[in-house]
Amino acid sequence: MPKVTASIKIVPAVDSKDIHGVIDKAIEHISKWGMKYEVGPSNTTVEGEYEVILDKLKELGKHMESLVDRFVMIVDFDYKRGGISIDEKVSKYR
Amino acid sequence: MPKVTASIKIVPAVDSKDIHGVIDKAIEHISKWGMKYEVGPSNTTVEGEYEVILDKLKELGKHMESLVDRFVMIVDFDYKRGGISIDEKVSKYR
Amino acid sequence: MPKVTASIKIVPAVDSKDIHGVIDKAIEHISKWGMKYEVGPSNTTVEGEYEVILDKLKELGKHMESLVDRFVMIVDFDYKRGGISIDEKVSKYR
Amino acid sequence: MPKVTASIKIVPAVDSKDIHGVIDKAIEHISKWGMKYEVGPSNTTVEGEYEVILDKLKELGKHMESLVDRFVMIVDFDYKRGGISIDEKVSKYR
Repeated sequence: MPKVTASIKIVPAVDSKDIHGVIDKAIEHISKWGMKYEVGPSNTTVEGEYEVILDKLKELGKHMESLVDRFVMIVDFDYKRGGISIDEKVSKYR
Repeated sequence: MPKVTASIKIVPAVDSKDIHGVIDKAIEHISKWGMKYEVGPSNTTVEGEYEVILDKLKELGKHMESLVDRFVMIVDFDYKRGGISIDEKVSKYR
Repeated sequence: MPKVTASIKIVPAVDSKDIHGVIDKAIEHISKWGMKYEVGPSNTTVEGEYEVILDKLKELGKHMESLVDRFVMIVDFDYKRGGISIDEKVSKYR
Repeated sequence: MPKVTASIKIVPAVDSKDIHGVIDKAIEHISKWGMKYEVGPSNTTVEGEYEVILDKLKELGKHMESLVDRFVMIVDFDYKRGGISIDEKVSKYR
């Protein structure tokens, strides 16, 4: 499958004051996937092969499990035949 | 990792009249995963091992690719240490 | 505008053990809106006039504010010209 | 209620080639709300009073209704006591 974008949002079940610390660790993990990524106000978007992203999400899940007892993770994939990029979607607005 | 729930929403880029046909095919695919599943008004929730769900999503992506040129897929995972089930979340409301 | 469905998910920033108590209070609030509703494993779906749902969400926000210091609320609207119902989307799967 | 962020994603039920045209019109509409906003790869985030955003969403719904026969709209609110801003969430990553 071609390149897709995947926007990843994690909400850990922790006290309000601890949320950003946990999210920072999730973003640090994603930043090491070797994919283009962009941190936004509600999620972090990566650009990469669909299957590779799913495998990386396995590692991210294990990482989160090491940090908190409960979390919600919402992954929003955008698939387009031939591939799609972050730039294609936002460049005209920057 | 323990059992999680994953709620899967697919929005295919097709004309209004064709949406439900494509979504029915996605649900049919999910129904064959061998996991407990429940179809809701905004998504379909499965209950299973986190890694297995991610592998099944690879197949679902390929299946969708065979049906439409573009789609959005949003997967909402709920992880709880020790595992979580659909029943645990909805039984008191049924 | 015609009837839409709106699936409401709330993730409060509280400890894992306290999540379901807060979500139960949110569902109890929604159950008093006077709209058809259905509790699912990842969200609660209501069926009603678009503008009325938005006004009810104002009250729900205030209610949540009285309960917790931080929360994420995700509302997933499905609009179809002429109106759409929960039954129309799930009846064949029940 | 204090300032919240709301990330708005719209998926119109139109052919793949027409999606970006419709989304551009939705973003143009949001850009006139008089709120700080940021276009991202999977949604557009605004920063404003909770109730005001809900009222603006009424207008956005009507605008979408004038453009397409069906659409999904997902709005992801982040509420924090005392208020939250887009900058607070992303500045260290820019």
